Amino acid sequence: MTPAQTSSDVVAALRNGFATDLYITEPDLLRSYANDETGTYFGLPLAIARPRSATELSHVLVRCHELDVNVVPQGGLTGLVGGAISSFEAPELVILLDRMNAIRSIDKVGFSMVLEAGCVLETAKLAADEQDCQLPITFGSQGTCSIGGNVSTNAGGYNVLRYGMTRDLVLGLEVVLPDGRIWNGLKTLRKDNRGYDLKQIFIGAEGTLGIITAVALKLFPKPTQVETALIGCASVEDAMAFYAKARRNCTDLLSAFEIILRPGMELAFATKSDLKDPLENPCPVYILMELAAGNGISLRGVLESCLEDAGDLILDGVIAMSKAQAMGLWAYRETMVAGQSAGGAYYRTDVSVPIKSIPAFLDDALSSLANLLPNGRPITYGHVGDGNIHLNVIPPTDWSMEQRKALFVQAEYLIFAAVDRFGGSISAEHGIGRSKKSAFLQRIDPITLDLFKQIKRIFDPDERLSKGRIFDL
Amino acid sequence: MTPAQTSSDVVAALRNGFATDLYITEPDLLRSYANDETGTYFGLPLAIARPRSATELSHVLVRCHELDVNVVPQGGLTGLVGGAISSFEAPELVILLDRMNAIRSIDKVGFSMVLEAGCVLETAKLAADEQDCQLPITFGSQGTCSIGGNVSTNAGGYNVLRYGMTRDLVLGLEVVLPDGRIWNGLKTLRKDNRGYDLKQIFIGAEGTLGIITAVALKLFPKPTQVETALIGCASVEDAMAFYAKARRNCTDLLSAFEIILRPGMELAFATKSDLKDPLENPCPVYILMELAAGNGISLRGVLESCLEDAGDLILDGVIAMSKAQAMGLWAYRETMVAGQSAGGAYYRTDVSVPIKSIPAFLDDALSSLANLLPNGRPITYGHVGDGNIHLNVIPPTDWSMEQRKALFVQAEYLIFAAVDRFGGSISAEHGIGRSKKSAFLQRIDPITLDLFKQIKRIFDPDERLSKGRIFDL
Repeated sequence: MTPAQTSSDVVAALRNGFATDLYITEPDLLRSYANDETGTYFGLPLAIARPRSATELSHVLVRCHELDVNVVPQGGLTGLVGGAISSFEAPELVILLDRMNAIRSIDKVGFSMVLEAGCVLETAKLAADEQDCQLPITFGSQGTCSIGGNVSTNAGGYNVLRYGMTRDLVLGLEVVLPDGRIWNGLKTLRKDNRGYDLKQIFIGAEGTLGIITAVALKLFPKPTQVETALIGCASVEDAMAFYAKARRNCTDLLSAFEIILRPGMELAFATKSDLKDPLENPCPVYILMELAAGNGISLRGVLESCLEDAGDLILDGVIAMSKAQAMGLWAYRETMVAGQSAGGAYYRTDVSVPIKSIPAFLDDALSSLANLLPNGRPITYGHVGDGNIHLNVIPPTDWSMEQRKALFVQAEYLIFAAVDRFGGSISAEHGIGRSKKSAFLQRIDPITLDLFKQIKRIFDPDERLSKGRIFDL
Repeated sequence: MTPAQTSSDVVAALRNGFATDLYITEPDLLRSYANDETGTYFGLPLAIARPRSATELSHVLVRCHELDVNVVPQGGLTGLVGGAISSFEAPELVILLDRMNAIRSIDKVGFSMVLEAGCVLETAKLAADEQDCQLPITFGSQGTCSIGGNVSTNAGGYNVLRYGMTRDLVLGLEVVLPDGRIWNGLKTLRKDNRGYDLKQIFIGAEGTLGIITAVALKLFPKPTQVETALIGCASVEDAMAFYAKARRNCTDLLSAFEIILRPGMELAFATKSDLKDPLENPCPVYILMELAAGNGISLRGVLESCLEDAGDLILDGVIAMSKAQAMGLWAYRETMVAGQSAGGAYYRTDVSVPIKSIPAFLDDALSSLANLLPNGRPITYGHVGDGNIHLNVIPPTDWSMEQRKALFVQAEYLIFAAVDRFGGSISAEHGIGRSKKSAFLQRIDPITLDLFKQIKRIFDPDERLSKGRIFDL
């Protein structure tokens, strides 16, 4: 956009010749697409394009190139790093794929499905389920997030332990490149070794290299039995020693292994009045574990002998006797986000460390926070079976946004320094986007950054797409 | 190498200043590194460098850049596409990593191992096994191939069905780039979402983008029980209908599902006199299946009820009652390569199609071969649980190499045409290298080829590394 143009000139030039309903330009409507789950980013889009096909999106991107308009793809707005929100300073054209949401096919023998990027994750999961298959990408925002966003951010969640990250489930992609070319890598072959695996470049690239329009995913047989237990331990050490045993004793049928430290459980009780202390006595550490299997074995037996074998590491525990009870146990975990945000903006992380370092890392990071940030209330939970922890900090409820932001900076400094000491990652699953960009750039080595830039230059030399997310050219 | 230089001048310039034992230059020794398993490629290296560290390799590559010497990394010479053999016309410096073969660490809790690229796969598997862990990359040449080669070619094998390709098992890499820079992505974190996942670019790139010097791999709990069965079916249709049931009935514990058509079994009997017809009556199709698990369940029970449930699809079958019997059942499958090569050069493929298309694909391809290539003897086996088939053709034993090569061209034309009709891949696991380059380039779309070239230009603009493999710049 040259300085002489007004944004309405540009929007008129964008619309010219396209179907009249392709664009949303009414300011009131645009406002609904100006925030994400972080709550700390705001950016009114220049306009929103809602293409019906990869071809239509291609034409839009060619026009954007001609007009020098920057573009950002947006999924279900459940991102946690500000990546999909338009720039505030230089409004971008938001691409919404909500009209490209078809489930094109499900293959019950080849265990695969092909779907368009705008399909909501839960819709895809239900469609797989109806065909006795399982799409094992599972997390709190699954009712809102889109498959395109899941793939673009390489989403994690509860079942990574068993089924891998979203990357591990992608068989093929269709991607519209910033210059408008459509790359067709949409295939359901389980094995294909023909040269460079280009789809890997787009997975987890946070929309900076192309816009994913369709996805082929691996499915699994739908489990016919699920066992869920909530276990209390005396310490993180004991909980992780229990993990080491459970990983072996559950013979690859362990599908989730989540930790919640006592302050997280207390937050859950305070948030939802029907959530009571689940065990007779309070425990410092809770583990929520899930096993899933088909017919032909006693899954309850596997769980029970796993717990028996770890008797010395467990203080107490409860096994769900019904699906409703299992949902009741998951409710503690699923209340975490609502519980934390009830008091206003809070600081959240998604760090990872090597699994065996989790006890020492938490000891280190929580001591730092207690000593140096006594006003912050740390809440600790996460996917410890993958080495991934959400170590978050809630400010006092009466603090202003300015006070909170100052606390967030200090909390990030302390927690990331501990992550560095244990050779961990400052982003295990949420990605970098804008909110972690500066911390990321402080830590990246020059060779990696150079290669990132060279890859970006191949696909998007003008930084037309998701400009300034992750890094700058 | 400029025309004025002789190769001994160049070798002297390569050696200058390095440890005297870094290079192998004696022609008699070089000859041992001039062939791979294909038997159809020969290329005497200019010399062989055997670096002891990534730093030493980096210095070698900088020198190669100064001297304009082309380079090819070589693993255990078990490749099947001629990728690691020096060019015949323009001898290359071969990089051997046999001195970089240390197993640096094994983490029994985090289920990961870090090892140098020259480590032989079987050595790595045994080291994991000693720590009660499983490294599930498994195939015939595991006693010879190197981890660096496995990762560079994204090796497949028997256990892909359950554990994925080598790509799915890589947590981190260290790579020396063609310009000598060392990229350090060697980490064991299970989850890490910091920007582009650069390691994916090197995995399966067949040594064209960098030389992998160290690898971090995922491990799994070592199974404490394994069940193996050989099943006879009346048709490929029945065998694949059995697969669809078994995938569900074995509750994610199925670790191998291999097919052998009757001519393959007969080849096995002819090759090893101790291999007898395993079932009472000959069957058109045989399935070799394996289940693996830890303690706490009856794995035999799972297998038996899986077979019972598929009674109408199975003619006969045998379950191994001991480890020795299981090895005896695997012997049919493992004799395939020796059996086919006993009569001299033969034509081999590693194609894949969508799993549900396997019966129709085999019907189509085998009819084409029978009608149009009656002199060739088709042998069909492979990893059908992944949609991956080795459909090979053995020429008459008395045919000359010229006659054989003409037959190979015709067989490739017929088989790949059938692969195309079913939307399959001409390489599911062996890669492209040189032997499939022309067939690959005939099929690749222009956008994919353009992106391949642009990626190659980032890492290796002078085509110094593995020049002419997969494609040309």
